[in-house]
Amino acid sequence: MASNLIPEIGEFGLIGKIAKIAGPTLEAVPKLIEGIGDDCAVYRLSEELLQVSTTDILVDQVHFDLLTTPVKHLGSKAMSVNVSDICAMNAIPRYALVSLAIPPSFPVEMIEELYRGMANAAAEYGVAIAGGDTSSSRSGLVISVAVTGEVTEERIAYRRGASPGDLVCVTGMLGGAAAGLRLLMREKDIMLEHLENRETYDRNLMADLEEYRNAIRSQLLPLARLDIVKFFHSAGIRPTSMIDISDGLSSELQHICRSSNTGALIYENSIPIGPETRLTAEEFQDDALTWALTGGEDYELLFTVPKDSLQDISAHRDISVIGEITPPEEGIFIRDIYGMKIDLAAISGFDHFRS
Amino acid sequence: MASNLIPEIGEFGLIGKIAKIAGPTLEAVPKLIEGIGDDCAVYRLSEELLQVSTTDILVDQVHFDLLTTPVKHLGSKAMSVNVSDICAMNAIPRYALVSLAIPPSFPVEMIEELYRGMANAAAEYGVAIAGGDTSSSRSGLVISVAVTGEVTEERIAYRRGASPGDLVCVTGMLGGAAAGLRLLMREKDIMLEHLENRETYDRNLMADLEEYRNAIRSQLLPLARLDIVKFFHSAGIRPTSMIDISDGLSSELQHICRSSNTGALIYENSIPIGPETRLTAEEFQDDALTWALTGGEDYELLFTVPKDSLQDISAHRDISVIGEITPPEEGIFIRDIYGMKIDLAAISGFDHFRS
Repeated sequence: MASNLIPEIGEFGLIGKIAKIAGPTLEAVPKLIEGIGDDCAVYRLSEELLQVSTTDILVDQVHFDLLTTPVKHLGSKAMSVNVSDICAMNAIPRYALVSLAIPPSFPVEMIEELYRGMANAAAEYGVAIAGGDTSSSRSGLVISVAVTGEVTEERIAYRRGASPGDLVCVTGMLGGAAAGLRLLMREKDIMLEHLENRETYDRNLMADLEEYRNAIRSQLLPLARLDIVKFFHSAGIRPTSMIDISDGLSSELQHICRSSNTGALIYENSIPIGPETRLTAEEFQDDALTWALTGGEDYELLFTVPKDSLQDISAHRDISVIGEITPPEEGIFIRDIYGMKIDLAAISGFDHFRS
Repeated sequence: MASNLIPEIGEFGLIGKIAKIAGPTLEAVPKLIEGIGDDCAVYRLSEELLQVSTTDILVDQVHFDLLTTPVKHLGSKAMSVNVSDICAMNAIPRYALVSLAIPPSFPVEMIEELYRGMANAAAEYGVAIAGGDTSSSRSGLVISVAVTGEVTEERIAYRRGASPGDLVCVTGMLGGAAAGLRLLMREKDIMLEHLENRETYDRNLMADLEEYRNAIRSQLLPLARLDIVKFFHSAGIRPTSMIDISDGLSSELQHICRSSNTGALIYENSIPIGPETRLTAEEFQDDALTWALTGGEDYELLFTVPKDSLQDISAHRDISVIGEITPPEEGIFIRDIYGMKIDLAAISGFDHFRS
């Protein structure tokens, strides 16, 4: 039997194989109406009410670097990335379980700071930290959070409901988290250089980063868009499909199109990219659009609505319409500012196993 | 500010500090009726029905050693230890979320085997594997599983309900998992010695382990006692308190007594220890009783019932009555076979951060 390594089949190849093995276990639990494949699992609580659940694992040196990440921000981010998955189902988060594997060399205060960040974020979202598990780790810090939320059956949004003609929308600004990551990596290099030359690293130099505040904030302290979910509920808007942008716009749009069996056409000049992100990209001689399409970690929402919802959607200043769902045979494209159509399949997102 | 390392305050010291920070987040969610402190968090689904949730994290070189653990068994164990926490609430498990951090050097087949073990166990318990997350790991394998179950309000068992006069009971045999661990560690040493001397290690030698089959099985492939929960439900028995034995009988009994504000007196000659475990202890010139009291990982249930339930309980051949709950001022003691009373507080359980 040929033995493949995981990087060869990639994260989504692995998920496919896992889903095949785990799938049959769903038959025993009819109330579990959605298993692996969307942002959350879905469990029926009653005729109207559904429970949605998700889990995300954050690993030292893969998802974060403690040299550039205040541990309190890390705690907040661990909560936010999970709540973001709950939001992607158009649901309200309720409670969280937290598992930590901690190197024994960590001071207790550091774990308290981590939890303070988590508790602050939880309070912000109205989530209860209900329990968890702690263990020592023989290597780096690992944080695994699971969050459970609720939504009525008539409000829930899956990835698979988009139809040709629907508007493609995103919240907030994209590419900011990628810009923030570049800035932090550069700062880390400077810090390490200082250490190597046995010079002191002046933390006040960080003040120079003030002008990049928003970008660094979107990388270190992303906020789940629960405000948008609440706007949907109060305005009576139900997205026909929704996903959160954790791996970059391109990859997430492809998830929606594949699940919905549609194509899509989006427009470069409609993609919301902040001036700070453009400036940073210029400085790094990189491309802000590529960051928006593939950078990931923005934790904004990508969703579709019927065309006649345009007015309702436009009422919110933080939502941009970036294109339209098309029939599947038309493929998934972006039209750039020169009018060229570029196949988004050629522009893929972040893969933890391949990076 | 003095900076403590985690091993100095221990696992329970850390949990206390965490509970203090996470506690206030519960206020926002009145339906979350039990947070950190029992085997599961408890969330109210309706007037009668409660949801219980738990999570456990298993870390390479802390909880398992891939040299002596078939990865399929590891998958099964990761599911069972969580289901065991659900059982400790007298609840029925429903669905699981699985997070993995995987070294990129792992063959895909190994993760499939891990999932096969998990799916087998899930099918055994009637649990649906509903979703999860996968990430690469820069070091060892980390498995975090969260399981959710259900129980009616009139059936749920907490740690805190024991009263003086109640009978103290355990299921199955204790100390078997500790015996299995010793045997596997010895086998590993033999294996490594062979490798060092560049001799081939004959896997068939493992056949010699056949006589220790049960002990090794309880270490590698523990089963959550869902059968006991179903017996309780069908026989109309509600334990006044319950906990699963993950850290050893001594530590778990102290948890029940501390939560219930009681003492307890148990009897050495009533503690169920299998002949194989005694034989193994003799071979290792160790003490089988100590393994039962502090070895941990047996995943049997420790519970209390009112004295008048004795007849109902006795109907089950796999339940042993080992003692009695006493008033708090009488302390927590074990009476040994010579009639001596020994303070159990002096005999503590397994602490992941101190071992």
